[in-house]
Amino acid sequence: MAVSVASVTDICRAARAASRRLAMLPTAEKDAALLAIADALEARTSDILEANARDLEAGREAGLSEALLDRLLLDPERIAAIAAQVRDIAALPDPVGEAIDGFRLPNGLDVAKLRTPLGVVAVVYEARPNVTIDAAALCLKSGNAIVLRGSSSAAHSNAILAAIAAEHAPEGAIGLVAGGGREELAELATQDELVDLIIPRGGEGLKKALTEVATVPMIFAASGNCHVYVDADADLDMARAIILNAKTQRPGVCNAAETLLVHADVAARFLPPALAALRDAGVEIRGDERVVAIDPTVSAATDADWDTEFLALTLAVGVVDDVADAVEHVNRHGSGHSEAIVSGSYAATRAFELGVDAACVYVNASTRFTDGGEFGFGAEIGNSTQKLHARGPIGLRELCSFKYVVRGDGHVRG
Amino acid sequence: MAVSVASVTDICRAARAASRRLAMLPTAEKDAALLAIADALEARTSDILEANARDLEAGREAGLSEALLDRLLLDPERIAAIAAQVRDIAALPDPVGEAIDGFRLPNGLDVAKLRTPLGVVAVVYEARPNVTIDAAALCLKSGNAIVLRGSSSAAHSNAILAAIAAEHAPEGAIGLVAGGGREELAELATQDELVDLIIPRGGEGLKKALTEVATVPMIFAASGNCHVYVDADADLDMARAIILNAKTQRPGVCNAAETLLVHADVAARFLPPALAALRDAGVEIRGDERVVAIDPTVSAATDADWDTEFLALTLAVGVVDDVADAVEHVNRHGSGHSEAIVSGSYAATRAFELGVDAACVYVNASTRFTDGGEFGFGAEIGNSTQKLHARGPIGLRELCSFKYVVRGDGHVRG
Repeated sequence: MAVSVASVTDICRAARAASRRLAMLPTAEKDAALLAIADALEARTSDILEANARDLEAGREAGLSEALLDRLLLDPERIAAIAAQVRDIAALPDPVGEAIDGFRLPNGLDVAKLRTPLGVVAVVYEARPNVTIDAAALCLKSGNAIVLRGSSSAAHSNAILAAIAAEHAPEGAIGLVAGGGREELAELATQDELVDLIIPRGGEGLKKALTEVATVPMIFAASGNCHVYVDADADLDMARAIILNAKTQRPGVCNAAETLLVHADVAARFLPPALAALRDAGVEIRGDERVVAIDPTVSAATDADWDTEFLALTLAVGVVDDVADAVEHVNRHGSGHSEAIVSGSYAATRAFELGVDAACVYVNASTRFTDGGEFGFGAEIGNSTQKLHARGPIGLRELCSFKYVVRGDGHVRG
Repeated sequence: MAVSVASVTDICRAARAASRRLAMLPTAEKDAALLAIADALEARTSDILEANARDLEAGREAGLSEALLDRLLLDPERIAAIAAQVRDIAALPDPVGEAIDGFRLPNGLDVAKLRTPLGVVAVVYEARPNVTIDAAALCLKSGNAIVLRGSSSAAHSNAILAAIAAEHAPEGAIGLVAGGGREELAELATQDELVDLIIPRGGEGLKKALTEVATVPMIFAASGNCHVYVDADADLDMARAIILNAKTQRPGVCNAAETLLVHADVAARFLPPALAALRDAGVEIRGDERVVAIDPTVSAATDADWDTEFLALTLAVGVVDDVADAVEHVNRHGSGHSEAIVSGSYAATRAFELGVDAACVYVNASTRFTDGGEFGFGAEIGNSTQKLHARGPIGLRELCSFKYVVRGDGHVRG
C-alpha cells in the first residue's frame, strides 16, 4: 500500500517532489493511470465495502444522523459511479500546456502564456468518501500532486480509496493525511513552502478555522446563499418553475436557492400560487412583513434568515421595490455564488447582470446550473465564491497556474 | 481634502461602499478622473515638493542612506513623470467587461465569462512615493477602490499625493492608512470582510510578517532570485551580453539576475572573459568550487549566496553538468520570478522551458524584460511570484476578477 502513516510534513514533501515529475508527465501516461485507478476501484469493490462498513458501524455507534450516514455510505453502484467519473476525467482534454495567450512584442520577443500545473494541491473535505477519488483524479489529470485530508468519520473508506489510487499513480502523487484532528489541519494549512493551494470543502466553521491559521493560499469551495428575484416584468409561470427548481430539485447543495425576492408590483399576484406550489413541495416559508401581509399564514423571517444557507426545504421570501433594491439585497446578504433574475425587461436584466457581484448571474434560468459538469468543464472539485484565481466551478483549468515563455534572439534591455 | 484621519476599518468600509459604484463607472468617467488627477499633480507641484521636503528632512535626521533618500526624493521632473504615467494609464483599454470566454451549452444556455473589478485592493509599499499614484491610478482604471499603506518615511509625500488623487476620484475610492506601524498593517491585513486583495510590495520581512497575520488573500509583488544559465551550445558572445545586461543594467530591481550558471563543457572558455567583463562593470563575483578552480581570484560562494537576492552588483556563479542540473538548481534556489537559458540547442531550450517553474522563462533573452510595460500591459503594480491568480506582471487585467453571466429562456435543471 502506497499510503503509509507519515507526518503531514513528510506527505507534503513527497507531494512536492512528485509534483516536479507530474508537471512533465505526458497526457497518455496520466490517462493510463486514471483508467487503471478506475479498473482497480471496481476490482476491489468488496475491500472498499468492508472498509466502508467499519466507518458506518462507528458512525452508528457515534450516533451520526441518517443523512450523514447516507453521505458516508458506499455500495457497488456508488463505487461504479466513482469509477465512471474517473474515466470521464481521463477523457477530458489535458489543460497543461494550453496556450492562454501569445503575442510578439515590438522588439521581436515572442511571449507565450502557457497553462502549467499549480504543483501541490491540498483538499480538505467532509463526510463523502467519493471526494477522495474525484479530487485525486482531477489533480492527477491536471498534473498536480494532491494531499487529501478527509473526515475522521470516513477514515477507513478514505484510506482504502486513496491507497488504491496511489498504487496506480506516480510515487508521492496522492497523499492522505491520516489524522482527522484540528492539529493536523493546522499543520497542513501552514505548509506554504510545500503546498501551493488548499481547497476547503465544507461549512463556515471550517472556513473560519482555516482563515485564522492558514499561510497556504486558499480557495473556498464554500457555501451558497443564492437568490431568485422575480421582477415586475417576469413571466410568472416561468418564475414559479424557476424558484421551484432552484429551491426543491436538490435542496442540500450550494447552488440551491435560499431566498426569493419579488417585485412589489407583482407580489400579490405571484406569491399566493407560488407559495402554495412551494408548500406542496414541502417547503417551509419565512416571509418579511409585506409577504406576511399578503399571506398571514406565513411565519415571520428573522434578520438571520436572510444570511442563512438553509440547505433544506426552507425559503426566506421578501418583497422589494425594484431591481435596484433586489441587487442591493443580493449584494448585502448573498455569498457571491449564484443569483437569478426572472424578467422580460431588458433594462431590469441588464441592471441585475451588471449590479450583482457573484460568481454566476442567471437571467431567466435556475441557479442550479452552477456546476462544472453543467458548464461543460467535465468535473469540478467545488465551486469558488472568492474572487481571486477561480470563481464558480473549479475544474481542471482552475487547478492550473501558467507561465510566460519568452523566446528571443539575444535580446537585452536598453 | 478627501483623505482624513480615520481608522483602518473606516477607510476600508468607505472603500467597500465606493467599490460598488466604481464597478459600474463608465470608462469615460474613469479616464476623465485620471486626467484630472494628472493635471492636479502638475498644478500642485510646489505643494508636493514642500511635503516631500519634510519627509527628506526627517529622513536625513533619522540617518537614512543616500539610496533611500533618493528613492524618497521628488522633483518637478519626477512629478511630471508620475503625471505622465497616469495619462498613460488613462489611455489603456478598460479591462472591465472584457469577454474572457463565452459558449452556448447543449441545453441552450448562453454563458459569458466577463471581467469584473475585484472590489477593494489594498497596497502595502515602501519608500517610493510614486507608488501612491501609480497604484491608485491602476485601481481606478480597473474599477477597484484602493486602500494605500505606505512607509512612515514617506508619510507627508504620500498624504498629499493621495489627497490630490482622492479629490478627483469618486468619494471613498482612494484611501490612505495614516499610521505606518505594524499594528495598522495587521488591522488592514485582517479586513477580509471588506478587502478583496492585499498586494505587499516589499522584501521578505514584510512578506513573512503579513503571511503570519493576514486573512485577506495576498499576492506578493515579491523578490526575484533570477538565474541566467549558459548552455554548452550557447553563442558565448550572446551569453556574455545577456548576463551583463541582466546583472548590471539595473541591479536594484527584482528582474535583475543574481546567479549565473554555466555548463561544464564551456565554463573554462566562457567564464574568464565573462567574469572580466562583469568585473569591469563593477560586479563582485562569488563562485562555487569549479569556478574558483578556473579563476582562483574569485571568492568562494557560501550556501546562503545561492538563495540571496543581492539587489546589488554581486553575482553568484556556479558550474553545472547539464541542463537538467541547471533546471534543478533553478527550481531549488529560485524564487519563481524570471529565469533565462542561453543556448542554440533545441533540446536544451525545450528542457529548460518545460522544466523551470517560474513566472517567466526566457530563451536567449535577458531576465530584465519581466515588466508590465515591456510586456505591453501598459503599467504594473508589481510582479507576482506566486502561482494563484496573477503570475508575473500585475497589470489592469490582473487587478480584475470575472463573473459568469448565464442567459436562458426559463431553463430549469432536470
